[in-house]
Amino acid sequence: MNIRSNPDTTLPAVTTGNLPSSRKIYAIPESAPDLRVPLREIILSEGAGEPNLPVYDTSGPYTDPDVLIDVNNGLSRARLDWVKERGGVEEYQGREIKPEDNGNVGAAHAAKSFKAYHKPLRGVGDHMITQYEFARAGIITKEMIYVAERENLGRKVQLERAEAARADGESFGAEVPLFVTPEFVRSEIARGRAIIPCNINHAELEPMIIGRNFLTKINANIGNSAVTSSVEEEVDKMVWAIRWGADTVMDLSTGRNIHTTREWILRNAPIPIGTVPIYQALEKCDGDPVKLTWELYKDTLIEQCEQGVDYFTIHAGVRLAYIHLTANRVTGIVSRGGSIMAKWCLAHHQESFLYTHFEEICDIMRKYDVSFSLGDGLRPGSIADANDRAQFAELETLGELTKVAWAKGCQVMIEGPGHVPLHKIKINMDKQLKECGEAPFYTLGPLTTDIAPGYDHITSGIGAAMIGWFGCSMLCYVTPKEHLGLPNRDDVKVGVITYKIAAHASDLAKGHPAAQLRDDALSRARFDFRWQDQFNLGLDPETAVAYHDETLPKDAHKVAHFCSMCGPKFCSMKITQDVRDYAATLGDNEKAALNLGGTASMGMSMSGLIEDGMASMSQKFKDMGQQVYVQAEAVKESNKAL
Amino acid sequence: MNIRSNPDTTLPAVTTGNLPSSRKIYAIPESAPDLRVPLREIILSEGAGEPNLPVYDTSGPYTDPDVLIDVNNGLSRARLDWVKERGGVEEYQGREIKPEDNGNVGAAHAAKSFKAYHKPLRGVGDHMITQYEFARAGIITKEMIYVAERENLGRKVQLERAEAARADGESFGAEVPLFVTPEFVRSEIARGRAIIPCNINHAELEPMIIGRNFLTKINANIGNSAVTSSVEEEVDKMVWAIRWGADTVMDLSTGRNIHTTREWILRNAPIPIGTVPIYQALEKCDGDPVKLTWELYKDTLIEQCEQGVDYFTIHAGVRLAYIHLTANRVTGIVSRGGSIMAKWCLAHHQESFLYTHFEEICDIMRKYDVSFSLGDGLRPGSIADANDRAQFAELETLGELTKVAWAKGCQVMIEGPGHVPLHKIKINMDKQLKECGEAPFYTLGPLTTDIAPGYDHITSGIGAAMIGWFGCSMLCYVTPKEHLGLPNRDDVKVGVITYKIAAHASDLAKGHPAAQLRDDALSRARFDFRWQDQFNLGLDPETAVAYHDETLPKDAHKVAHFCSMCGPKFCSMKITQDVRDYAATLGDNEKAALNLGGTASMGMSMSGLIEDGMASMSQKFKDMGQQVYVQAEAVKESNKAL
Repeated sequence: MNIRSNPDTTLPAVTTGNLPSSRKIYAIPESAPDLRVPLREIILSEGAGEPNLPVYDTSGPYTDPDVLIDVNNGLSRARLDWVKERGGVEEYQGREIKPEDNGNVGAAHAAKSFKAYHKPLRGVGDHMITQYEFARAGIITKEMIYVAERENLGRKVQLERAEAARADGESFGAEVPLFVTPEFVRSEIARGRAIIPCNINHAELEPMIIGRNFLTKINANIGNSAVTSSVEEEVDKMVWAIRWGADTVMDLSTGRNIHTTREWILRNAPIPIGTVPIYQALEKCDGDPVKLTWELYKDTLIEQCEQGVDYFTIHAGVRLAYIHLTANRVTGIVSRGGSIMAKWCLAHHQESFLYTHFEEICDIMRKYDVSFSLGDGLRPGSIADANDRAQFAELETLGELTKVAWAKGCQVMIEGPGHVPLHKIKINMDKQLKECGEAPFYTLGPLTTDIAPGYDHITSGIGAAMIGWFGCSMLCYVTPKEHLGLPNRDDVKVGVITYKIAAHASDLAKGHPAAQLRDDALSRARFDFRWQDQFNLGLDPETAVAYHDETLPKDAHKVAHFCSMCGPKFCSMKITQDVRDYAATLGDNEKAALNLGGTASMGMSMSGLIEDGMASMSQKFKDMGQQVYVQAEAVKESNKAL
Repeated sequence: MNIRSNPDTTLPAVTTGNLPSSRKIYAIPESAPDLRVPLREIILSEGAGEPNLPVYDTSGPYTDPDVLIDVNNGLSRARLDWVKERGGVEEYQGREIKPEDNGNVGAAHAAKSFKAYHKPLRGVGDHMITQYEFARAGIITKEMIYVAERENLGRKVQLERAEAARADGESFGAEVPLFVTPEFVRSEIARGRAIIPCNINHAELEPMIIGRNFLTKINANIGNSAVTSSVEEEVDKMVWAIRWGADTVMDLSTGRNIHTTREWILRNAPIPIGTVPIYQALEKCDGDPVKLTWELYKDTLIEQCEQGVDYFTIHAGVRLAYIHLTANRVTGIVSRGGSIMAKWCLAHHQESFLYTHFEEICDIMRKYDVSFSLGDGLRPGSIADANDRAQFAELETLGELTKVAWAKGCQVMIEGPGHVPLHKIKINMDKQLKECGEAPFYTLGPLTTDIAPGYDHITSGIGAAMIGWFGCSMLCYVTPKEHLGLPNRDDVKVGVITYKIAAHASDLAKGHPAAQLRDDALSRARFDFRWQDQFNLGLDPETAVAYHDETLPKDAHKVAHFCSMCGPKFCSMKITQDVRDYAATLGDNEKAALNLGGTASMGMSMSGLIEDGMASMSQKFKDMGQQVYVQAEAVKESNKAL
């Protein structure tokens, strides 16, 4: 990989260049040949005997050697044309940036402004703006064509294999298609069962889709806080997170420079960016939830709509009536947004302004096609609080709000918990599907136990894999630092890889027609001792090769037909090659004799019977049976020099 | 922690001393007051307002400051008396150690011998020897009393809480008792549903139990190989693994010094040690499976029985008749033991000698009470091969062999896969219970995807949590080095912690009566901002505090009423304290008014209704609502100095 620094400035250096043995390729959709849909092709070694493997690629132009990355200029804004050519939008003089947008930061601590300013677009009158509106009207947008191509992972229709994979899975009612067409994408969005988060002002975006009938997606959270971290770090973390597979990124910044940080992130983000607008609104009223007003919040929404944020977490389900239900919890209200709104509701003794103004919020978000991520402000923060009345009361309200948002033309997904033991996960998924009309579910973990601070990527990866299988559309990562601190670069990577595992395990179990292609390719490489292919087909080739180097650092060992676990003397995979040769020599009669042995009940005299049946094979196999370790012994000699 | 080196020698230094804020305590069972059953008490901070928490303790005398550890002498051999006082055993001159036991290692590479030699014991004639035999005869042994006390985690009977926990779980037919009695232990062993692996020659052992109606256990694999690692490292890894929670350890050593390594491990092991005897037998015939004989294998069994190995993996289900079933697999036979036996069967065209001599194996193992771990030599090595005919044919044979071993008086558990996607895990568990008469299942993972070399502790931790929930009794860990190299100390720790998470998540989901006590204690600490208690109640306090230090290194922050995620300005947990104060002020009428709001359908005028109902609370709450950040602001000032 390369770390390119722009010579003009130190702000900010990001990681570019391909992953090992990979190249960026672009698919051209038949129905829109002006689109270039990115894929990563994993290049297998010579003699692999099978084609290179294309995989989903979230990393954006940062891994395209033909693109010169300069974060000071941001990415190219190709999607602007798609939006404009549909019409119904106007460019206008946006809201002026105010000192409070950046927490009234003084000159000494102000982050450098992003240099370009792009006038915002907004929808005009009743013109269709959102993907939901187009889908409902039967119109296929470029975004829909783009994501359809993307979901197919560069494969052509292989009906037989795809059908077998799907039949082998357990989808719990999901209906993953054998092949994704733009029309299928449209129909899923029209049903509210999928969303393409794509603010019309986020022109740098490579669109992606979130829905239970598509590949399971993951989100990575980044963001500075009042206590620590900087703009540079956050932009770098965003690029780093998508390099390893984050499908969307949420900027959860608080504290100062919040507007400027977000601008840098958005202008350099090929993936959807989500935020929690109440965090910034709170900064604007000096951190006191009691001082929050609808006007302040609305102003913040418009500020972020104009910048291009693709989805907003909005905790409109935290109603005054539910707050007292949390009083006897072990961990009360743990959502920041939820607790802010609870505080406001209590202090004013009023219903949440997010709830009372929900229709106005829809009207604003529709004009920019910002998707709702209806927040779970009352999610459980401990195993003890899972699936309680407060949590489910809020979920029922989110179901009501989903229908309001749809009626207003908006795209919607629903956020979910949290801390949930294994046996209470499925009820979360089932209830969400029922209450929210199959709108995509987007969960944080869930963490399946509370007892492992420092390892909550794992406690939650377990829950994430399960809920993904049950139908969750996007899994919000949890890093090793959860409950303890802010994630650094290493934590972001571990969090992303853990959640790629969870998402992929879900897809396999659902019977996604293409998911197992990668497992099979990697397992074949493993079995053939194609070490480099095994590393490169994995989610993190760099770590895999580093671990292999620790035990067997020599280059020769990367082609050795054994590994450090068994050593060269007896290698189980090598022996299986004998089995294949053997099986190939078996006739039907011999197989019948073997099957007889296989089904007989326990008896110590069985071996004689089988031996008789197998006698004709004996000499042939003995002839070839002694050769298997010759090469391995030679390699073992080379070990002695280590 | 302390790293103590014995001054006499450099061989080997191991980690001793308590975990942070913990002390070793011993419970004295009523029915056997001479027993001292270890527990670790986690000491909470002053003002925690709740008692210290006793937890299961696998770490042995290494964490008892009153015991002087000298690995050259080994641990005390208290259990020798238990065995002798039952009678039916004789001390005898054991088998002589032969050069081939250590791979004919030359003087230059020979490991130092363990200095003490203990004459072995063996059963005499038809006297009862095994825990299974005693259990069937209605006799409660000291081992049974010991593990009963141990499983109760130092708690007294709290029927109401225990019943609630159990009723809240989903056990899939497991029947975890509210409180574990010695008689319950006996009955479970007598049914073959649990085992206490406890070779009569492993006098250093602190007994533990494996069965679906007890706490889910985990195993850690260690062992040198032909390629790398040493005796010192392996002893250190064993001590390290149990420090973090490994319930049993398998010594999978191959190559030279195999006998000596095992002796050092056993004499210093307070946990059951398992081995795969075929590995050593293979070393004795120059690594050529074709040269294996029953006599060679039998000699190896006796060698290891005399040393004190507690359980043997025996791949007696790899029958000649099943081998050809693996020919079309993506990854063939991946078990080392399975492939060795497959090779032997093919080369000789005979039924496996492990199968044909199975009754003799039982007779040998019974005399020492070595438990069977019937190996899954045909387990799937990739997602593609999961649940195929080869795998299940072997499992059916393991069911047959289980009944033979029981008839011979032996304790038995069954090994399971491997690589299995999420949706195929439960069928493994269900089939094992059915075929093997509920004998304990002991699985490797399973890994739920093949695509993450370097992270297979996570791909498998997901599967382990699930199969543990479904009824698996012991989970064999997988480290980050799986498929890539041998685990080092760090890998062992990560593997163990990951599997402690999986096992605990299983116990929670099954409704184990005591499992959630630790989650609740930790969550209360988290919610109360008792940072040190949160760290200390976790599985890995050292990592937790290190992570917290990265963001907020000051000591003052360990008592701060905020964390780095939200910072001092708005802390969601703090706000919940307001909610509690508020809820306490609500009368029944107010609650009724709130519930009305909660169940009403979406309507923008709802807030007015609630406001009316709540009017009487307004002033009271406003009075107290402004105080919440006063202290936090003071702490924030202190941050500026960072």
